[in-house]
Amino acid sequence: MSDVWLTTLITDTPQAGFELAITLSRRGVKYTQPDVAVLKRLRPVYAEDAEALTAASQVIAINFQTVAAANNYWRK
Amino acid sequence: MSDVWLTTLITDTPQAGFELAITLSRRGVKYTQPDVAVLKRLRPVYAEDAEALTAASQVIAINFQTVAAANNYWRK
Amino acid sequence: MSDVWLTTLITDTPQAGFELAITLSRRGVKYTQPDVAVLKRLRPVYAEDAEALTAASQVIAINFQTVAAANNYWRK
Amino acid sequence: MSDVWLTTLITDTPQAGFELAITLSRRGVKYTQPDVAVLKRLRPVYAEDAEALTAASQVIAINFQTVAAANNYWRK
Amino acid sequence: MSDVWLTTLITDTPQAGFELAITLSRRGVKYTQPDVAVLKRLRPVYAEDAEALTAASQVIAINFQTVAAANNYWRK
Amino acid sequence: MSDVWLTTLITDTPQAGFELAITLSRRGVKYTQPDVAVLKRLRPVYAEDAEALTAASQVIAINFQTVAAANNYWRK
Repeated sequence: MSDVWLTTLITDTPQAGFELAITLSRRGVKYTQPDVAVLKRLRPVYAEDAEALTAASQVIAINFQTVAAANNYWRK
Repeated sequence: MSDVWLTTLITDTPQAGFELAITLSRRGVKYTQPDVAVLKRLRPVYAEDAEALTAASQVIAINFQTVAAANNYWRK
Repeated sequence: MSDVWLTTLITDTPQAGFELAITLSRRGVKYTQPDVAVLKRLRPVYAEDAEALTAASQVIAINFQTVAAANNYWRK
Repeated sequence: MSDVWLTTLITDTPQAGFELAITLSRRGVKYTQPDVAVLKRLRPVYAEDAEALTAASQVIAINFQTVAAANNYWRK
Repeated sequence: MSDVWLTTLITDTPQAGFELAITLSRRGVKYTQPDVAVLKRLRPVYAEDAEALTAASQVIAINFQTVAAANNYWRK
Repeated sequence: MSDVWLTTLITDTPQAGFELAITLSRRGVKYTQPDVAVLKRLRPVYAEDAEALTAASQVIAINFQTVAAANNYWRK
């Protein structure tokens, strides 16, 4: 993957930071399985599996820790 | 999801911070599975599964770390 | 749950901090499954499951990180 | 459990800190399952299960983060 | 493994930092299972398993926390 | 285990720090299962299990966070 997709961790709002955390989480999957067709096939299965959804939320939470710290928690 | 749901990580009390951590955890799930009908169907199953409940509590704990740091742990 | 159960992360001793971490972990479960009767039914099952006990200990460890940082690690 | 088992997170050496992290991890289990007879029964099973051993090591690693930070990483 | 593969955690951009986090995650696997033939055999299996992909993304997220902190979050 | 195996978290290079993180991860297992014969028996099984390898890499990542912080990320 030679495309540029991440140039900064700084976001305007906490919500944009949370959405960046989601992007980071998905990129982590995509670097391991770059075949989009496979990812599409897997999606419907795990999106109906409560355990898998919780695990996905956990990865987002870990990445959100990083993004929030980078933004000094968007404190004024 | 274009609605605004997260404008600040700052809360008045630790308990409100804990409840924000729960919101973050649920949003992490919702971004992955936006279909509310599916989420409602999954809920009764995993809410009776001890392992799933512990996993949910873990995601909350990770998000609470972020919120607590943002609030400088509500120290006076 | 409108009751007030968390007003501060500050504790007198590390042990009281560890016990607060346990409270946080249990509250994380309770917010997801508020029905105490269900929780009571689940308890004997997972309390005899080594994997579930380790997972519970992990959530406590994560919450203890937060409480310990809040208390500046109870350094004199 | 009203006994006093944790009065400080400060240790003389990193190794003593690692051993304190093990104590914290075991206490996390014990607060959830206080019956020592049950714990003894579970022990031989999970001590031969690679996945359970890795999970135990993970809890120790998380608690070691806390203890190491408390001790300022035992830097001179 | 006596080869030198990690001389610094500093990277020019967040994306290069994310890719270093991937390298760290893979090295963690490789130190445990150094036999490349085995790793190659395992790859197609877990690259089609949603749970395994999420777990891989989680390890990357944890390593990215370290790399991002090392780089002071690439703040200007 | 009364032998001295950990006297400092400081290492010359990030790679030596990563290898110390591996040592910490293995010690976490060994304190739980001190019988080397059992560990040797388990090794071939989990070293061929992708999920177990990812879990091992995760524990290393957590311990590497600690070691990297201790070394101030080997910044010059």
